[in-house]
Amino acid sequence: MTLLVKNGTVVGPSGTFVADVLVDQEKIVALTAPGLTQDADTVIDASGKYVIPGGIDAHTHMELPFGGTAASDTFETGTAAAAWGGTTTIIDFSVQRTGESVFDGLAAWHAKAEGNCHIDYAFHQILGGVDADALKAMDTLVNDEGITSFKLFMAYPGVFYSDDGQILRAMQKARDNGAMIMMHAENGPAIDVLVAQALERGETDPIYHGITRPAALETEATSRAISLAEVARDTPLYIVHLSASGALAKVAEARDAGRNVFAETCPQYLYLTLEDQLGAPGFEGAKWVCSTPLRSKHESHGRDLWRGLKTNDLSIVSTDHCPFCFKDQKELGVGDFSKIPNGIGGVEHRVDLLYQGVVDKKISLERWVETISTTPARMFGLYPRKGAIAVGSDADIVVYDPDGTTRISVDTHHMNMDHSAYEGYEIAGKVDTVISRGTVLLQDGKYHGKPGHGRFLKRDLSSYLV
Amino acid sequence: MTLLVKNGTVVGPSGTFVADVLVDQEKIVALTAPGLTQDADTVIDASGKYVIPGGIDAHTHMELPFGGTAASDTFETGTAAAAWGGTTTIIDFSVQRTGESVFDGLAAWHAKAEGNCHIDYAFHQILGGVDADALKAMDTLVNDEGITSFKLFMAYPGVFYSDDGQILRAMQKARDNGAMIMMHAENGPAIDVLVAQALERGETDPIYHGITRPAALETEATSRAISLAEVARDTPLYIVHLSASGALAKVAEARDAGRNVFAETCPQYLYLTLEDQLGAPGFEGAKWVCSTPLRSKHESHGRDLWRGLKTNDLSIVSTDHCPFCFKDQKELGVGDFSKIPNGIGGVEHRVDLLYQGVVDKKISLERWVETISTTPARMFGLYPRKGAIAVGSDADIVVYDPDGTTRISVDTHHMNMDHSAYEGYEIAGKVDTVISRGTVLLQDGKYHGKPGHGRFLKRDLSSYLV
Amino acid sequence: MTLLVKNGTVVGPSGTFVADVLVDQEKIVALTAPGLTQDADTVIDASGKYVIPGGIDAHTHMELPFGGTAASDTFETGTAAAAWGGTTTIIDFSVQRTGESVFDGLAAWHAKAEGNCHIDYAFHQILGGVDADALKAMDTLVNDEGITSFKLFMAYPGVFYSDDGQILRAMQKARDNGAMIMMHAENGPAIDVLVAQALERGETDPIYHGITRPAALETEATSRAISLAEVARDTPLYIVHLSASGALAKVAEARDAGRNVFAETCPQYLYLTLEDQLGAPGFEGAKWVCSTPLRSKHESHGRDLWRGLKTNDLSIVSTDHCPFCFKDQKELGVGDFSKIPNGIGGVEHRVDLLYQGVVDKKISLERWVETISTTPARMFGLYPRKGAIAVGSDADIVVYDPDGTTRISVDTHHMNMDHSAYEGYEIAGKVDTVISRGTVLLQDGKYHGKPGHGRFLKRDLSSYLV
Amino acid sequence: MTLLVKNGTVVGPSGTFVADVLVDQEKIVALTAPGLTQDADTVIDASGKYVIPGGIDAHTHMELPFGGTAASDTFETGTAAAAWGGTTTIIDFSVQRTGESVFDGLAAWHAKAEGNCHIDYAFHQILGGVDADALKAMDTLVNDEGITSFKLFMAYPGVFYSDDGQILRAMQKARDNGAMIMMHAENGPAIDVLVAQALERGETDPIYHGITRPAALETEATSRAISLAEVARDTPLYIVHLSASGALAKVAEARDAGRNVFAETCPQYLYLTLEDQLGAPGFEGAKWVCSTPLRSKHESHGRDLWRGLKTNDLSIVSTDHCPFCFKDQKELGVGDFSKIPNGIGGVEHRVDLLYQGVVDKKISLERWVETISTTPARMFGLYPRKGAIAVGSDADIVVYDPDGTTRISVDTHHMNMDHSAYEGYEIAGKVDTVISRGTVLLQDGKYHGKPGHGRFLKRDLSSYLV
Repeated sequence: MTLLVKNGTVVGPSGTFVADVLVDQEKIVALTAPGLTQDADTVIDASGKYVIPGGIDAHTHMELPFGGTAASDTFETGTAAAAWGGTTTIIDFSVQRTGESVFDGLAAWHAKAEGNCHIDYAFHQILGGVDADALKAMDTLVNDEGITSFKLFMAYPGVFYSDDGQILRAMQKARDNGAMIMMHAENGPAIDVLVAQALERGETDPIYHGITRPAALETEATSRAISLAEVARDTPLYIVHLSASGALAKVAEARDAGRNVFAETCPQYLYLTLEDQLGAPGFEGAKWVCSTPLRSKHESHGRDLWRGLKTNDLSIVSTDHCPFCFKDQKELGVGDFSKIPNGIGGVEHRVDLLYQGVVDKKISLERWVETISTTPARMFGLYPRKGAIAVGSDADIVVYDPDGTTRISVDTHHMNMDHSAYEGYEIAGKVDTVISRGTVLLQDGKYHGKPGHGRFLKRDLSSYLV
Repeated sequence: MTLLVKNGTVVGPSGTFVADVLVDQEKIVALTAPGLTQDADTVIDASGKYVIPGGIDAHTHMELPFGGTAASDTFETGTAAAAWGGTTTIIDFSVQRTGESVFDGLAAWHAKAEGNCHIDYAFHQILGGVDADALKAMDTLVNDEGITSFKLFMAYPGVFYSDDGQILRAMQKARDNGAMIMMHAENGPAIDVLVAQALERGETDPIYHGITRPAALETEATSRAISLAEVARDTPLYIVHLSASGALAKVAEARDAGRNVFAETCPQYLYLTLEDQLGAPGFEGAKWVCSTPLRSKHESHGRDLWRGLKTNDLSIVSTDHCPFCFKDQKELGVGDFSKIPNGIGGVEHRVDLLYQGVVDKKISLERWVETISTTPARMFGLYPRKGAIAVGSDADIVVYDPDGTTRISVDTHHMNMDHSAYEGYEIAGKVDTVISRGTVLLQDGKYHGKPGHGRFLKRDLSSYLV
Repeated sequence: MTLLVKNGTVVGPSGTFVADVLVDQEKIVALTAPGLTQDADTVIDASGKYVIPGGIDAHTHMELPFGGTAASDTFETGTAAAAWGGTTTIIDFSVQRTGESVFDGLAAWHAKAEGNCHIDYAFHQILGGVDADALKAMDTLVNDEGITSFKLFMAYPGVFYSDDGQILRAMQKARDNGAMIMMHAENGPAIDVLVAQALERGETDPIYHGITRPAALETEATSRAISLAEVARDTPLYIVHLSASGALAKVAEARDAGRNVFAETCPQYLYLTLEDQLGAPGFEGAKWVCSTPLRSKHESHGRDLWRGLKTNDLSIVSTDHCPFCFKDQKELGVGDFSKIPNGIGGVEHRVDLLYQGVVDKKISLERWVETISTTPARMFGLYPRKGAIAVGSDADIVVYDPDGTTRISVDTHHMNMDHSAYEGYEIAGKVDTVISRGTVLLQDGKYHGKPGHGRFLKRDLSSYLV
Repeated sequence: MTLLVKNGTVVGPSGTFVADVLVDQEKIVALTAPGLTQDADTVIDASGKYVIPGGIDAHTHMELPFGGTAASDTFETGTAAAAWGGTTTIIDFSVQRTGESVFDGLAAWHAKAEGNCHIDYAFHQILGGVDADALKAMDTLVNDEGITSFKLFMAYPGVFYSDDGQILRAMQKARDNGAMIMMHAENGPAIDVLVAQALERGETDPIYHGITRPAALETEATSRAISLAEVARDTPLYIVHLSASGALAKVAEARDAGRNVFAETCPQYLYLTLEDQLGAPGFEGAKWVCSTPLRSKHESHGRDLWRGLKTNDLSIVSTDHCPFCFKDQKELGVGDFSKIPNGIGGVEHRVDLLYQGVVDKKISLERWVETISTTPARMFGLYPRKGAIAVGSDADIVVYDPDGTTRISVDTHHMNMDHSAYEGYEIAGKVDTVISRGTVLLQDGKYHGKPGHGRFLKRDLSSYLV
């Protein structure tokens, strides 16, 4: 079974070239001058379109239990939505809460995902309780389970929170086994004080979610995580959902020093703000309650984040996809913003929202592909299996139409959400065709994907370290 | 009763001038052109000598209980030693340990000091347990007790440690009542991991005390304290015993931004090093176990700290005087460095050790007076009562002989210690005469001071804020 | 002849105290407790008022030839205006233009000033042509003429401009003889290009004076001057009329490194802006044409400069007083902004304009005195003769009334100008009494000063170096 | 005519994959799974070896007239040596000296190169006299001549030097026509003073060449160039032969700000030092006289430059190949270091010397390819024609043997030099096979290249801008 994507403009991190891409079974087996390859069982004409490696969303939370409810997308609905949006791999998070076993958490997440995914998937492991057992489990996950990255929380005391001693121990372990430490960098104990004080003052609206999580406390935690990684002899460190200019500056400083410090941001921080979304009238703002929170438009966060994508101080754009419906879910926090489930859904829109940055000349075409696909693959041990239009890579291919238009709306999206964080956005560019391991999932506006096509990916160590 | 100090060169923060200083009872009542004042009951000729305000040591721990023993200087022995060394005021620390009452601690410290001091004294308050009671007590101490500065610990979990939420609450309280927050800035939870790991590896010698408290963890905590003070709407913050270049850089950065962030260093960090003292053969290094620890001579800490004194990024030199005898006290830690009582004694030598910096052209004469007397007085609400040779000020006067020589030795010092941290040092300059509130304590090498002369000083809010 | 200023609150750089100040002939001979001194020939009651050392304006240009005309204040009119405003010393600039002799310039300036000044005066020397003769002259001026500071220009090619080689040679000479190098830091060759291009485009209005001298080119030149001073083995360097945030950042960076780099700003940069003044309708903006130019209000310059005064990254406020009348003088530039004489007059208002900063809580009372008097004296070798209310100092004393009000207007000012840069300002605080070397110049709103009272001051080397 | 490079490990900027590379005539026409392509006229087995795009040396000076002599490599000898070392493209410099015509210079350089080169070549244009004619010429070169980068000198007054006004005008022109400005960033006027003073003191040995060009003056000029580029509305700027840590810091700062500022370094700055080479006994050091000079081993330059390559603050490694024989050429400077022709030869060794950095774990394999080939191609408008193993690219291919060894010696090198700057170096890795536009130049240690094979490359604008 062969498939030929012909005449497209292949976009890679260094530039573009026109070539035919030949797929045999699940793999790319050749790139050739246009016309050189004559025959294939299936031929897709990509003339005038971009041919890019399928998107990799390195940060999703399908059906994550949170605050008495659970993220509204299952692995089935969420991965289908991802595929619609040109993403062919997600890396979700297996969860150990404080007091639980790492292996139990992992087994539970495998059970949720297995057989249900439309696209390939992998796991990071959340550690909510770093103790001797968890430290041992880290080795096992790296060596046997293909899980080579571990997320810790400086926020959420009592739920996921690790103190600095626990963080240091986990980092030392990662230093020894080669894993990457991912960090939710917000100072939880200080935030909890601000939240309690706000509620005491009757400040219960959604916007106070953002006000009680000031940028300074993200900056502080980011700085601290970088220091602890230094004490752990330069453990590779990856800051998740970076949203504050100050935190970016800390990452940039470490990177200038040649350290293995990386960060992702998310589309919501590039496009949405504290005042315009979180501060929407009434309880409307609850739709945009996520942590780290949206930042003030009166400061330079959004502009700085775009700049960080240009300079590679921000290496990746993920979604932190964690959708909750407004009705019954977000509404749990009416009268108390601290009870609003935290999360925004966006797994379907990342590729498009970033392409808009290309059109707006905020990033180059090359950086688009790098930030949505190539770097996530390299960062998290999937390269060159994923993230490349190259001989030997999985045939995860997106044909992207720069002349198309994408309209975002709850009426048309495929995520299991009763609203859209980007309702009404009209974006230049359009996902034309989506291929996962040689199978066409989307073509001519028709969706052919099925649950179970997606497989679990055991990951190697990062190949992105300096 | 009048006293005239005549013909001396008065040194102040902006420069020098020659004048006669007239004292009536306890106060300075006039500065005049030499010879203008004719009569006085007592006349001291300061020709060719410097006339400076008495030294103020803003950080001492007389008879502090620590690690199953107590600092070896009582308020009586310690203040006498201070007077010998040209210091006429100390600010000691009343202590609340975790779980204790602030008022009980304060009462206990008043009981230790009252009637026993040779020189005037004041208290900072250590808060080891920030809770609702302690927060209320802060107001009382500021308003009624003349205690306007509160010390918190980011180190010593389980003893003095405050978490970031507690720190934030105390800072907010200080912001409201005008007090200064003092911070022991070391990341205790991370240090405890390193200490435990070192002991597990059999690394028990005194030098491991320093190695397990790396500079990066002082820098981190300093940075975090500055961030939390920012979140508390720019609470004034004073970093105690700063020893690491990186921490200094964080302080300098905040000061460049115009914030009320201050720091002190201590003579031990200016003169002594990890390798040469803490790493002395056998258990000898225990003499120099203190926290923050001595830093490596292979890095630029000492040079940077001297520079910080020049630039005023370090505003004050205190001693953190906390003496323990080698025998029976330091020896508690034989075989386990973590059991060595933390502290170095030096209250007697600060004025001389800093004058050596003038001779070595590391600081100016003006900065000498500023860092040892004027700034401590301004910083901690004692100015112009203390810290100035000015009309209306307390007659705390030191006549300092730039042509004299001071030799430091356990054989000659007056502190209750069986060793000296600076044994054998020979220093240019000598304390010639010491006057406290108009009373001559030291003259012609003879000591006339007595316990009970010193009085408790209720302090105002800082007048040093920008 | 004795004079007593009694009951005033003496303000110094470290704080305040209440004292009587006794003057005998031209000198301060005693500070005493209020009431201690009984008799004096003249008594001035300063109760409820501040007693401060007379202002020192370290940057004025009386009757400076410039662009085919000359600054409109003579030494007589300008020093009288200074006295009215509480300034009792000016440091003006003797000028060597390119191609002229240093000694000829100095002689000419002595001739202009001698016998005409109401207050004491000193000279800096402008070097417009650094060659072998000029380098030799630097030694003579330092050793014999009491001129210990030399101003160079990175701007004005063909008039005052020195290239980087000349600057380096002058700095090396200063390094050897102890003098201070003062720098007009703007990149002249680049500015000349922008000016020519603007005029070619028909952009002739006054605002283009500012637009063609962008902040980036002040920042660049400041950075370059600091680098050249480093190459000259840390020659002391003083940046004049600093107006740009970026330049301030460069100065702060050098100061953090412990280097002898200093800067002044001027009231115009603290209060006035490119848009509101230089951009005034029609040709009105010509009143505010000065170099460095006023900066944009849409950037943070003004706020940053006030912060720099707090942090001492800006050590001094001078006026760069260089007045030109609007009629006939400023009007030379109608139709060509590059022909507008450069300069703003303000020698009369500096003390008041900075006191307003105290009222507005932008600087402390102590910093007020430091920046307008004490630091200029220390910086330029006049301390403690000037800049202090201290025994032995010249009796240059200002009694300042914090409850008074000062209104600024061309109708009431004493400068020889037909307009005021600060027309209509109403400022808290008022100069009450002005005493110069024991002579009362201003009291009860009546002026008693006379030309010829002021004497030339030979200056020592700076005592402000770190 | 087809050629197949089979079974090699293709190395690109994002990672590696194993593929066969098929060449037809001068172009790469396919990359396929190993074995998929069956037939080719020529087959090269690259099993176990790296397949990389041919090296691009973006900075050479073949037969450059300098100081009364000329660089000793002609375009013929120099390009042959380049080919031996795995470099298949050079970008040399056409020269306009002060007072000459740009077009004359360009014609002269075309005459030197045409028909003589073994490999493809392009030109940057040196502007030694920016005037109205030269500014017009810039447009012509960009639009018609395929020369899209212009080098200016802040050094060498009277020869190549441009003042800041000229630099600004050239930058503005480049901003408008899209060209890149390259800068030799050293403060020439200040250096000339230091050189003259050294010679006056009799300091004539080669090491004084380095001592009179201190790092601070490279840092200064780099900072100034960046400022001028900012004033020219962010003209793309490329700093050549960066050697000083401070200059790197300035570049990094601009890059963090998202600006189009780039820099190259050279192997000599990565491996050689002021003391060990330039300070060699007697006149030996003359071999290593180049500008910018080798830097002190007692500072951190070399380590910082390697770090800069990791962080991409240094984007490219070029050689600044400008060889002079010791005899008769370097010897022109016996007794006067300022007469030593400036330059080091190294075009043959760049690829190997950088691969050693991979072996030493200073840079990754990916960065090796990026810094020696891919980025130069992108930076200077040659991508994807050059710099990529990709469909449609020129078949400039190097097979590199990681298991080989390269020994550097004057006895074996192919450059026209009577000594080697790297004499005796033994380096891991070896150039195995070199292919230029489909023609095998080197294989099995035999050289098949010929003058005239190399063609002039008209370049596009940079595709590397952010």
